[in-house]
Amino acid sequence: MYQIPRGTRDFTTEEMQKRRYLEDSLRTTFQTFGYKEIQTPMFETLELFTAKSGEGIIEEIYSFKDKGGRDLALRPELTAPVIRFYVDKLQMEAKPLKLFYFGNCFRYDRPQKGRYREFMQAGCEIIGADTPEAYAELIAMAYYLLKNVGLKDVKLNIGNLNILSSLFETLKISKDKQKQLIPLIDKSQFDEVLTLLQVFGVGKKVANEFLEILQLSDIKKITKIIEKDESAKKELAYLEKILNLLEKSFNIKNYQIKMSIVRGLDYYKGIVFEIDAPLLGAEKQLCGGGAYELVSLFGGKETPTAGFAIGFDRTILALETEKYPFPSTKIKVYVIPVNEETIDKSLEIAQNLREQGISTDIDLLRRGIGKSLKYASSINAEKAILVGPRELEQGSVTIRDMKTGEQETVKLNDIQNRVN
Amino acid sequence: MYQIPRGTRDFTTEEMQKRRYLEDSLRTTFQTFGYKEIQTPMFETLELFTAKSGEGIIEEIYSFKDKGGRDLALRPELTAPVIRFYVDKLQMEAKPLKLFYFGNCFRYDRPQKGRYREFMQAGCEIIGADTPEAYAELIAMAYYLLKNVGLKDVKLNIGNLNILSSLFETLKISKDKQKQLIPLIDKSQFDEVLTLLQVFGVGKKVANEFLEILQLSDIKKITKIIEKDESAKKELAYLEKILNLLEKSFNIKNYQIKMSIVRGLDYYKGIVFEIDAPLLGAEKQLCGGGAYELVSLFGGKETPTAGFAIGFDRTILALETEKYPFPSTKIKVYVIPVNEETIDKSLEIAQNLREQGISTDIDLLRRGIGKSLKYASSINAEKAILVGPRELEQGSVTIRDMKTGEQETVKLNDIQNRVN
Repeated sequence: MYQIPRGTRDFTTEEMQKRRYLEDSLRTTFQTFGYKEIQTPMFETLELFTAKSGEGIIEEIYSFKDKGGRDLALRPELTAPVIRFYVDKLQMEAKPLKLFYFGNCFRYDRPQKGRYREFMQAGCEIIGADTPEAYAELIAMAYYLLKNVGLKDVKLNIGNLNILSSLFETLKISKDKQKQLIPLIDKSQFDEVLTLLQVFGVGKKVANEFLEILQLSDIKKITKIIEKDESAKKELAYLEKILNLLEKSFNIKNYQIKMSIVRGLDYYKGIVFEIDAPLLGAEKQLCGGGAYELVSLFGGKETPTAGFAIGFDRTILALETEKYPFPSTKIKVYVIPVNEETIDKSLEIAQNLREQGISTDIDLLRRGIGKSLKYASSINAEKAILVGPRELEQGSVTIRDMKTGEQETVKLNDIQNRVN
Repeated sequence: MYQIPRGTRDFTTEEMQKRRYLEDSLRTTFQTFGYKEIQTPMFETLELFTAKSGEGIIEEIYSFKDKGGRDLALRPELTAPVIRFYVDKLQMEAKPLKLFYFGNCFRYDRPQKGRYREFMQAGCEIIGADTPEAYAELIAMAYYLLKNVGLKDVKLNIGNLNILSSLFETLKISKDKQKQLIPLIDKSQFDEVLTLLQVFGVGKKVANEFLEILQLSDIKKITKIIEKDESAKKELAYLEKILNLLEKSFNIKNYQIKMSIVRGLDYYKGIVFEIDAPLLGAEKQLCGGGAYELVSLFGGKETPTAGFAIGFDRTILALETEKYPFPSTKIKVYVIPVNEETIDKSLEIAQNLREQGISTDIDLLRRGIGKSLKYASSINAEKAILVGPRELEQGSVTIRDMKTGEQETVKLNDIQNRVN
């Protein structure tokens, strides 16, 4: 017996129904916001990802040489490929470009609960717009994407990395020291942040103020603390505009300001946001994104870019946790040839129903009525059509309602009406 | 600038609309036939593919070692992974299993016209049924999958590898010699087949009979020639049953018998078929499949299996060649804030329309009316909504029909009715 590769999954028919439901719902919302779908290859040149994330990423991804000696990598995320596509072929398109995509990504992680080596993401980028309304629309779309799939309990957190950078500058904390602080901030380990700030020689009062900002969600209070930091104040005013649009134009009021969002990625700049499903505990983040700079790094003419990604697995887990009633595509009609004589006519009846878009299955194993009815019941078919030789001579079949057990004799040309 | 890997593709928004149309249409037809969707990982252990196709396949696929030293391979096709999935997890399910799937596959081919290193396939397997009605339904589904996507000109060819094997046996042609003949038969190079048969010591009369069978499409004539071959006769009678069902029950009459179909694969047994789009010339084959044996090779309890695959690229090429009018998802409404004051209200108007499922875009770049109308026209928006400060004070906006240029003043709470 051959094993499935470690950390990867087979999806059953039930799981695929959930995944296709999610995909369809997300696609519909993206499209109503004026976004259009694109797709990039499953692998890229390795240097695309090292250029974006540094050599360290090689440890975490599936990289390999093709037979021509080229270094390739299964994509660990979708933003770098999309910006590569943009720089290569889309720079001349009318701005802003609003692009969305679905794709499998791959990471060479240690497999653990809810973390797989192959996983699916939905994502989008808006290229060429950095007005407050552009960012407000982007964040609102992320929120409504998740609301429209049926999630009740989601939490939107919004931060701004330029404010964080500005604070670091005021505190005279070098880039190297920032790198030690950022993972702690990201995990909300504020005691450790305080200790480390003191090790770095930041005075207790100033350090405490810094920590207060990271934990405050009241924009007025934050403004008061950073009063003297002109650059941070400007960023905060800009953020406030975005928040006003979210509230007034998009009717989103249950968000929180969270200056400790760092997204763990070097290329984010300015606004960042995350959407959580609090029910999921430690693995609660469903969506993350923000503004970033990547176009010029990839050789293009710099232009504002922002985007986000939604994790498929966690979103489905969140829906399951909320007991969302996923729709399922069912077989509507099951056709049963009563004996071998009626097989050809049974196939014809099935085919006629299918041509009307009615999902129809048929006994292909000559199982007899009893077993076939049991099978029809096991697949939740609504109706069974019994095709017997004597009835057929009279131009009729028997239609059985699988829920009530009621049966009626129906003329051949009346079957479609009766099953619909 | 970073390059896309050789032989792979980025898909633009226009191309994705075609691909999603095709995928949706195929999925709908699969489902009306009672098939259900599954999915397997993008890569498998290398030995899965060498077990099925021999060591030779390593030359043609992307294989690599993961960081744990395991030999993996990007899947070159989907049947082996699906049967691996079946043997591993689905053997206890009620038979027959009717499974379909979509997936990208990878081959390390020399890129050429219409052949890519990453390509998408749709496919299916029926597991646990080998009645004539099961095969007739499978072939009919393949045919209707392609008809339902909108193709007018498709050609169904049906063969039977058991008959070919039986003929080889009668002619006392060893397996090794068969291997030399099969590629020539596959390419319909019948002169070369004749020469080689004579080299192998087959008498001219018998060799000519063999070639006649390969080229005949009249089942009566074939039966007459193989009269003495009991095994081939039995297979032919079985094939005839399937063909009768195709004609009578599925109303498919324009097929051809083609005994020279060999599918180039060792594991096919019995019925085989191909569907071509003759308009495409040399690259005309859209679909190929048949009955095969793979379950026991993969460690499962042997059970009948059959399936087929449809190539996405060629199917789209065939539709394009027939000038099929692909549906396109368009932006219905484009909202234009006439100046900065009306941005928040414009976003709200857009959001209200989106909540009604109306695809709506909005000027996010403060471009002004002229440029925004030009943009709305370039994306084929049906309506533009101009949100001006003075009208807004009166609770109104202007809706412009982008085709006729007609404009009307509309109350805010009447917008939805007017754009629908």
